[in-house]
Amino acid sequence: MDEFTLIERLIAPHAGRRDDVLLGIGDDGALVRPPPGEDLLVVADTIVEAVHFPHELPPSDVGYRALAVNLSDIAAMGGTPRWATLALTMPVSHPEWLRAFMAGFGAAGAAHRVQLVGGDTTRGPLTVTVQLIGSVPAGQALVRHGARPGDRVWVSGTLGDAAAGLPVAAAAAGSPPSGPASFLRERFARPTPRVALGRALRGLATSCIDVSDGLVADLGHIARRSHCDIVVAAASLPLSDALRAVHDDGAARELALTGGDDYELCFTVPPAAEASLRARLAELGEHATCIGEVQEGSGQVVVLDARGDPVIPVRGGYRHF
Amino acid sequence: MDEFTLIERLIAPHAGRRDDVLLGIGDDGALVRPPPGEDLLVVADTIVEAVHFPHELPPSDVGYRALAVNLSDIAAMGGTPRWATLALTMPVSHPEWLRAFMAGFGAAGAAHRVQLVGGDTTRGPLTVTVQLIGSVPAGQALVRHGARPGDRVWVSGTLGDAAAGLPVAAAAAGSPPSGPASFLRERFARPTPRVALGRALRGLATSCIDVSDGLVADLGHIARRSHCDIVVAAASLPLSDALRAVHDDGAARELALTGGDDYELCFTVPPAAEASLRARLAELGEHATCIGEVQEGSGQVVVLDARGDPVIPVRGGYRHF
Repeated sequence: MDEFTLIERLIAPHAGRRDDVLLGIGDDGALVRPPPGEDLLVVADTIVEAVHFPHELPPSDVGYRALAVNLSDIAAMGGTPRWATLALTMPVSHPEWLRAFMAGFGAAGAAHRVQLVGGDTTRGPLTVTVQLIGSVPAGQALVRHGARPGDRVWVSGTLGDAAAGLPVAAAAAGSPPSGPASFLRERFARPTPRVALGRALRGLATSCIDVSDGLVADLGHIARRSHCDIVVAAASLPLSDALRAVHDDGAARELALTGGDDYELCFTVPPAAEASLRARLAELGEHATCIGEVQEGSGQVVVLDARGDPVIPVRGGYRHF
Repeated sequence: MDEFTLIERLIAPHAGRRDDVLLGIGDDGALVRPPPGEDLLVVADTIVEAVHFPHELPPSDVGYRALAVNLSDIAAMGGTPRWATLALTMPVSHPEWLRAFMAGFGAAGAAHRVQLVGGDTTRGPLTVTVQLIGSVPAGQALVRHGARPGDRVWVSGTLGDAAAGLPVAAAAAGSPPSGPASFLRERFARPTPRVALGRALRGLATSCIDVSDGLVADLGHIARRSHCDIVVAAASLPLSDALRAVHDDGAARELALTGGDDYELCFTVPPAAEASLRARLAELGEHATCIGEVQEGSGQVVVLDARGDPVIPVRGGYRHF
C-alpha cells in the first residue's frame, strides 16, 4: 500500500470533522479558521516505543495515548483542543496495525472534537509525534508562573495509578488483567485528559500543569517559574482503591509522588477562590484534592510526612533527611 | 546534560523572537496570538536519516533542511510562516551535534522570521519532525484543486539540481566539492523555500504545489485534484548550468522531471494574468518558466519530447510509448 492509499483508506476515515477546517488532509498543508478573539495554544509530544510505552501495548492504546498526552497539555493551559497533526514513523506498514492505531487515535479525538488535519508517515522505528493546536479566550490561558504564597495546591483524580499500571501493560499478552490490575493498566494505557476541568479553572487557578513526569518533578516547574516554594503533605495525596489494593501505603505514596503518566491536573488556587472552585468541580462532576500550599521561597518542593517532617520520596517509601 | 538544560542552553538560543508569541518554550505549550482576519496554515514534515537525507549530511544542514521543507509547504499555500515546533529524536545527546543542528535550524528560521515555540526531544534513531503554522488572508490560500483548462503551468527556479546533488552530499567527507558539484550539493542540503513568491501568487495562481516528490508526481496531485490533464514540454524545463555541466541533456531532463527535493513552486496561471505574473516576478527578482498547460482530462500528466511525442521519463532519459 503506497502512502497516499494508506492515508486515504486507513488514516483519513478517523480524522474527525470540524466546521473550522477549510482544507484538511490532502493539500500541501491544512487551512483552518481560528476563532476571533482567542489566543492559540500549540503543544507537541513525541512517544517512542520502549521509551514511553512498552512494545506490548496494543496499537489502539498507542494511538489513543499519543493524542491523549497532547490533549492533557491543552487541558493544563485551560484551552479547547481543535486541530492535530500526526507524524507517524513505523518500521513496516501493517494495515491491521495502522487501522487499530487510528481507531484509538480517532476515539481520543472524537471525545474532544479534534480534527486530524495533516501530518506525515515515514519508515523507521516506531515513533509517534502529535502536535495539537487549541485555543483559549485572549489573556485567559493557565500558565506555570502565576503561583503566589498563600495559594493552596490541588490535584485532580488520583495519583500513582499509571506508574503502577505500566508493568501490567508491559506484561506479555495472555489472559487480560482483571480487578485492580485492569484499572491501573487502563490508567497507563488510556489516560484521561482533564480538558473540561482545565477550562473550568480559567480565572480561578493562578498556575496549572499536568502530571506527566511525576508530581514532585512537575510541581518543581511551577515552584521554579513562580519563584516560590511548594509544600506537599504526603498523607493528603489522593490514592485510588486499586492502587491501595496492590501496594502498601509507603509504596503507593511514593508512586503518587514520583510516578509519572497520570495526566492529572495540578494547580494552585487562592483561598478566596476555593468556594468557586468547589462549585465548579461539583458542576462538572470532577474531583480534586487539596494537597499542599505555596510559600515564600526560591523554587523548592518540600514533601512532609504524616508527622510534618520533610522527607525525600525514594523507591518503596521515603527517606528522611 | 538533562533535557531541560539541553533545551535552555542549546535549543532556546536559536528559537528566534516574534511579537505575537505570548509564551514560548517552557510551559505546557506555547501561547500565540493569530493575526485578525487571517486563516491559519498547518504543515508537518518528518525527515529520517538514511531515508530522506544521507548520514553524511552535516547537522547544520539537517537542521536547516528540516525547517526549509516545511517553509516550502507554507510557501506553496501562499502563506506567511510564523510558529514552529520541533520534535527531535536523537540516538545520543551530543551537545556539539545539537548546537550545529540548531544553528542550521535557526538560520532557516531567522531568514523567514519564524519562532520555535515548543517541541520535544527524545532518544532514538535520528528523526526530525517539524510542524509549522503560518497564516494567509482569509480566503486567499493557494490550493491544489483550482487549475482550469487553458491555464498555463509555471515553475520557479531550476529543476533536477537537488537529485543531482544528493550523491555529492552523500559522498564521504573529504575535500569539499567545488564548482557545479558544490552548487548541486547546496541545492539538496539547503533548499530555498520560495516564500515571497508564494505570497506574490495570491490572486494570480489557480493552483500551486511545491516540488518535493518530483515534478511529474507533484503535477499529478494538481491534475487529479483539479480534474484535468497537465501537458508538459520536456524541452522547456528550466535546467541550471551546473546540472548541464555534470549530466547530458537526456539525464538532466529526466532528473528535472522525476528528481525530488528541489522545493521549487509549480503553479498554474490563466493567460489573462500572465502580465501581472511577469510584473510581480520582476518586482521580487524571482524567476519562473512556463513549462506546459492545463487541458480537459481526467487527471493525467503527459510529458512531450521536443518533437511533440509523449514520453515516459526513465532513469537516464525517456522511453517512448
